Amino acid sequence: MKFSPLFWPVRFKDNTIYVLDETLLPNKVHYIKVRTYQEACAAIKQMKTRAVGQVTLVFYTFLLVLQKNKNKKDLMPVLEKVAKAINATRPTLSFKYLTDMVLGWAKSGVPLQNNITRFLEALKNKRIQQAEEASLLVNDGDTILTHCNVSGLMPLIGEFCAAQGKKVEFFTTETRPYLQGARLTAWELKQEGFKVTVICDSTVAMLLAQGKVNKIIVGADHLAQNGDIANKIGTYQIAILAKHFNIPFYVLCPPPSRAASGKDIQIEVRPEKELLEFNGKRLAPLGVKGYYPAFDITPNELITEHIYLKIDR
Amino acid sequence: MKFSPLFWPVRFKDNTIYVLDETLLPNKVHYIKVRTYQEACAAIKQMKTRAVGQVTLVFYTFLLVLQKNKNKKDLMPVLEKVAKAINATRPTLSFKYLTDMVLGWAKSGVPLQNNITRFLEALKNKRIQQAEEASLLVNDGDTILTHCNVSGLMPLIGEFCAAQGKKVEFFTTETRPYLQGARLTAWELKQEGFKVTVICDSTVAMLLAQGKVNKIIVGADHLAQNGDIANKIGTYQIAILAKHFNIPFYVLCPPPSRAASGKDIQIEVRPEKELLEFNGKRLAPLGVKGYYPAFDITPNELITEHIYLKIDR
Repeated sequence: MKFSPLFWPVRFKDNTIYVLDETLLPNKVHYIKVRTYQEACAAIKQMKTRAVGQVTLVFYTFLLVLQKNKNKKDLMPVLEKVAKAINATRPTLSFKYLTDMVLGWAKSGVPLQNNITRFLEALKNKRIQQAEEASLLVNDGDTILTHCNVSGLMPLIGEFCAAQGKKVEFFTTETRPYLQGARLTAWELKQEGFKVTVICDSTVAMLLAQGKVNKIIVGADHLAQNGDIANKIGTYQIAILAKHFNIPFYVLCPPPSRAASGKDIQIEVRPEKELLEFNGKRLAPLGVKGYYPAFDITPNELITEHIYLKIDR
Repeated sequence: MKFSPLFWPVRFKDNTIYVLDETLLPNKVHYIKVRTYQEACAAIKQMKTRAVGQVTLVFYTFLLVLQKNKNKKDLMPVLEKVAKAINATRPTLSFKYLTDMVLGWAKSGVPLQNNITRFLEALKNKRIQQAEEASLLVNDGDTILTHCNVSGLMPLIGEFCAAQGKKVEFFTTETRPYLQGARLTAWELKQEGFKVTVICDSTVAMLLAQGKVNKIIVGADHLAQNGDIANKIGTYQIAILAKHFNIPFYVLCPPPSRAASGKDIQIEVRPEKELLEFNGKRLAPLGVKGYYPAFDITPNELITEHIYLKIDR
């Protein structure tokens, strides 16, 4: 089984965290070296990594901090400082859920390093299971539409389908403004030999009306207790269109946070220039405003089936 | 009353047609000189002008051809050759409807030059009336969402609203891949002093869910007999979302063609590189396919009200 570099985009070796710079893909496969928790936070804020990359980076950052402070007696103040900095990076993915997990382990006195390593290993295995579970929802000859990037799970679903003797093709939205669909999803699917076609974010209704798509599968940055999800801006309208055209809409979910519903998930509004400029060049005239919420909430009732990540804390 | 340069983007003077190059806006206001019908067809194919710019360019091209052939006895073969070339430029806007009109006048023996000039004058006046009619649907304090560009009608609607003592604001989608919303609509609205905010094409559902929009007004490149319209790709899904959120969806229409319904309108599929490249730089990896239908069909039942262009042939 092959894995997309995006399946596990962060590695830890010799006191250094290596973070795949997703902003440079597909033109350049480059890993940023992260040696402090501040550098880790900067990589998150600058969107060098996202989704599962953020999750793994959080845990590796704690491993880094543990190594740096291995002779310290009381680690809690350090761990709490790091947790606070991580929680303040970006609001929509529940960083607090992850850092609380680590702080909880530390407080309970379990061997922290072992616990983190075990958790990451379990995360890897459960993600593979999640892709296999999704593949069972796909029929031979299906064409799957996706949005943004689900960190290596789409090619993995394709591989499981192939192993089951099922042929699949993919459409991906380009996913403005960061183009994760065109740059990341199309790249990783193409690399593994799957047929993939990019569309504008505005072409979804026409594609569904033309009967060109049998299933829609997306990821999620946040799963609330009631089944609402937060995912890349545009997911919500694709879910509404899926319902209109009666196409199954599946979500590959992270573990649920403590948010009761989507209303309790804070949506990050990113700087307008990320929308109004491209490669440093202004797209819209000066003086015009931009509104760029980076995520939206898809309510539970629009989701045909959640594909859960079954991991114990 | 002020007019956006996009309201009447093509002019005719001294045997030369001046076509506002919409691909260079908003960075540069530049008019291309067109001196032959072949150059006119090239300007259409290269999307230098669109919508009402295409319509006026067709008529000015016939005026140009008439001037060049003023001593010719039988003009019909020349006019038919020009009509055929124009009809072959792009499929979705009904060029044949326009060229048939001119050929019909020529066959009936009416003074062709006068008829064309009169028709263009009527078109100008009826478009102003159309904007005024649209303004009557807008309430004080409304925020209007639009998509792509309706050739100067949005700022004109804003001006009529202001004259009626009504304050309005605008959102426009950026409208990938040509960004007519960010480059043209935001520019012309800003120039006339209106507050305008650009969103990604994928932010529409969230914006409507947040209650930030009271009315949606878009244009149309083609109106079928049954009320179906063809307009810039993405219009269809905005109409579905408008229905989902119960927001009125209005369409500024051209005169109806002879197409019975949307099924009879041919949708232009443009080269994939217009989606996969930006400013000559590749966005998606090589080998990945792109699907770029430039228009979609919005069925009549999703349109709250058509705002017709009431012009006699």
